[in-house]
Amino acid sequence: MAPNGISESDIFASVIIIAAFVMAAGIVGRWLTNRFGQPAVLGELLIGIFAGNIGYWIGAPVFLVIMHLSEVAEIFSKVWLSGLSIIEATKQVLREGGLGLGEVGTQLGAILIGPNGPILVVTGITLWLFSSLGVLFLLFLVGLESSPGEMRQLGPRPILVATIGVIAPLGLGYMAIWWLLPESPHAVHLFVAATLSATSVGITARILRDLGKQNTPEALLILGAAVIDDILGLIILAVVVGIVTTGEFRVAELLRISLLSMVFFGILFIAGDRIVHWGIRLFRALDHHTYKLIFPVVLMLTTAWLANVIGLAAIVGAFAAGLVLTEEKFARYPDPGPTLQDIISPLQTVFAPLFFVLMGMQVNLASFLEPGVAWLSLVLTVAAVLGRLAAGLPASGRASPLSVGIGMVPRGEVGLIFAGTGKALGVVGDALFSAIVLMVVATTLAAPPGLKWSFSRGEAAARAA
Amino acid sequence: MAPNGISESDIFASVIIIAAFVMAAGIVGRWLTNRFGQPAVLGELLIGIFAGNIGYWIGAPVFLVIMHLSEVAEIFSKVWLSGLSIIEATKQVLREGGLGLGEVGTQLGAILIGPNGPILVVTGITLWLFSSLGVLFLLFLVGLESSPGEMRQLGPRPILVATIGVIAPLGLGYMAIWWLLPESPHAVHLFVAATLSATSVGITARILRDLGKQNTPEALLILGAAVIDDILGLIILAVVVGIVTTGEFRVAELLRISLLSMVFFGILFIAGDRIVHWGIRLFRALDHHTYKLIFPVVLMLTTAWLANVIGLAAIVGAFAAGLVLTEEKFARYPDPGPTLQDIISPLQTVFAPLFFVLMGMQVNLASFLEPGVAWLSLVLTVAAVLGRLAAGLPASGRASPLSVGIGMVPRGEVGLIFAGTGKALGVVGDALFSAIVLMVVATTLAAPPGLKWSFSRGEAAARAA
Repeated sequence: MAPNGISESDIFASVIIIAAFVMAAGIVGRWLTNRFGQPAVLGELLIGIFAGNIGYWIGAPVFLVIMHLSEVAEIFSKVWLSGLSIIEATKQVLREGGLGLGEVGTQLGAILIGPNGPILVVTGITLWLFSSLGVLFLLFLVGLESSPGEMRQLGPRPILVATIGVIAPLGLGYMAIWWLLPESPHAVHLFVAATLSATSVGITARILRDLGKQNTPEALLILGAAVIDDILGLIILAVVVGIVTTGEFRVAELLRISLLSMVFFGILFIAGDRIVHWGIRLFRALDHHTYKLIFPVVLMLTTAWLANVIGLAAIVGAFAAGLVLTEEKFARYPDPGPTLQDIISPLQTVFAPLFFVLMGMQVNLASFLEPGVAWLSLVLTVAAVLGRLAAGLPASGRASPLSVGIGMVPRGEVGLIFAGTGKALGVVGDALFSAIVLMVVATTLAAPPGLKWSFSRGEAAARAA
Repeated sequence: MAPNGISESDIFASVIIIAAFVMAAGIVGRWLTNRFGQPAVLGELLIGIFAGNIGYWIGAPVFLVIMHLSEVAEIFSKVWLSGLSIIEATKQVLREGGLGLGEVGTQLGAILIGPNGPILVVTGITLWLFSSLGVLFLLFLVGLESSPGEMRQLGPRPILVATIGVIAPLGLGYMAIWWLLPESPHAVHLFVAATLSATSVGITARILRDLGKQNTPEALLILGAAVIDDILGLIILAVVVGIVTTGEFRVAELLRISLLSMVFFGILFIAGDRIVHWGIRLFRALDHHTYKLIFPVVLMLTTAWLANVIGLAAIVGAFAAGLVLTEEKFARYPDPGPTLQDIISPLQTVFAPLFFVLMGMQVNLASFLEPGVAWLSLVLTVAAVLGRLAAGLPASGRASPLSVGIGMVPRGEVGLIFAGTGKALGVVGDALFSAIVLMVVATTLAAPPGLKWSFSRGEAAARAA
């Protein structure tokens, strides 16, 4: 639009062609794992790792930006707020992150100050936002597909699974890291242990959908526990950050989070039905052509936003919205047409794979070659897996303890967020960060085949019985 | 994610809650115009104007950013590339745009340097990108719904309509502005005339869909002519910018655009069928669950990108992709399930209204109060409308000349882009810019009721005959 500087249509063109590339990569990834009978999400992650590292290795600007997306977002905010030059901000952010200003830093800096810098920054951030929207749709859909009635039948069991699922990896991780790095300050031990307690409900929800198991007792137990885990994880992160930064145990923060989470879920489960009935009536009165799509989307975005305001993950809010909403609530209106699932599915199918491919593209294989990292990460991974298998133990007779345990294994992006916070606080160093990333990748990649195996094992046992 | 600075989840939260607000506003707008039997898009534009100006008047930061989105994108690029401070960049951009650094500029600057500045910038740009994606889906869907066979039957008529539709407003606009501002340099006359020759196929496509008329002879003629108009408009813009900046008539640029456009459409219409068959086969082999959604979307994004690379509007590429793709091309595969339209529709329903509401939110009612603006804009609007009604004359007996002419009236965002370029070049001053914006708004708002009226008039005549 402007003769000099970036134009809006340049940004748009860059976003859509990279999105097309990522979508095409996603379908290739799904083909790969379908051939081996594995869940599609594994293929998307793997193709992302493959394409991302090839592109990174070649030095393609957009791949560098995607690989270092959280650093780029920080650089953007630094440049904007502090008036630092891009190079200065890049130096600071990469140094804080322990990346240093080696070859990669110099390359990244050069790309960012180049004429396409602003376009690449906005492209990276926007793609990530598109993909985040995709995970919202995914969790919303999983919520839609699981029935709240059956979830209530589980009783307090998800709470038990979630509690063990947080405490066991926390304890095991604490011991493991103490054993490996006895000299490190206490704060380091705490942080690493906290990272092991994270759960990525996104990955598990996707695997369950890929396998068509989203309505099994195992799935309901895993999803219920994962939502509670998000709250517990948040509390742990708040406590650990408090201890590390102020040396104090912040009781007020702990109470605040617990209370807000309880209020949020309380309102949703007590008044949810009424809110939904009222909302459907209002939106239908406004426009009976589009209400069946627009009301669910507006509800989902609002609950996701509310969850985020409280400090929970946005996807937890989207899942809760899906639980509250059911096809039956629309059934009283005589509108023919596709079901809620049919309407929301395309949104998920287009945008959610972006998330998993992009997540793969952010895994830097080079960081695994650093000395000592392999051993550290192996021990952390074992602690992370054992802790979660223990969480499956309270599963009832109807749900397989093994499947529930494996379903809780993937740490996904939540683990990375924990580790990133530690890095930013200066608690988690270079090698340790790489080891945590490797642990996250290993637990995330192991879950799809693991869950498929344990479900088919259960089916074989059922047939034999 | 980072303890200080903006976090990625803050950006996401901000984007989704504003998106929810805009979607809800859209459905209220549709309710409004449905009550008066008008096309839904008119309601979305009006509610956008209403909400945007109320929010702007109150001084709500996000509304200020949306109202000045193109300036904000320019400020962002300036801050990033030149190392200027935000305030400096804001001053420069607003001065260039003739806005000055009055109250609005000071307010905007204060918002941008505030702690939420980066979040607001990214939110504004991302919403605009989401909405642009929505218009892609809309044009793609309109392309899907119009049959290329019927379009071919029209023969050279769309070319005739497009040519008159460009030349008549160009001539009328040139004379009108010469009469009104005889003292202004020649460049000004040229630019304003060029602005009158722009067409917004997005608005018209949406009205035709709202009225369920997208397969009438009129619609095919309008859409065909609009695509050709986009190419002609591009050539005119290139020529005018060349004359204004270098004083020369840039033949090379003119040839380049004409040649590239011909190659693009040539390949698409000659090899399009083969590309589509091959693409469907490939994507189906990769994943027969998602290919029917992913292949069309990847194709659409790629052609939109290609169109943009040539210099055409991305939506023209999306429309062309829709023309090439038909349900029958999928029919040879025995996959049950929803039709292409059913799959793509939700994407359009969610995202396209964002575009029209946001477009309304960028109309600053205050600019209409400037002295002299009303008269200027009235004359420009009359010239713009008369020029386009003339374009309808070559319509055949099957298509109503009046409907075709009215369908070509809305200038929409394309007219604003032309005016914005002139503003950035320093050719179009303050009052003139406001007058052009008012002309664009008037032609855009007049088209939905106008087209509805002319279609129902035609039907009444047909019943009487």
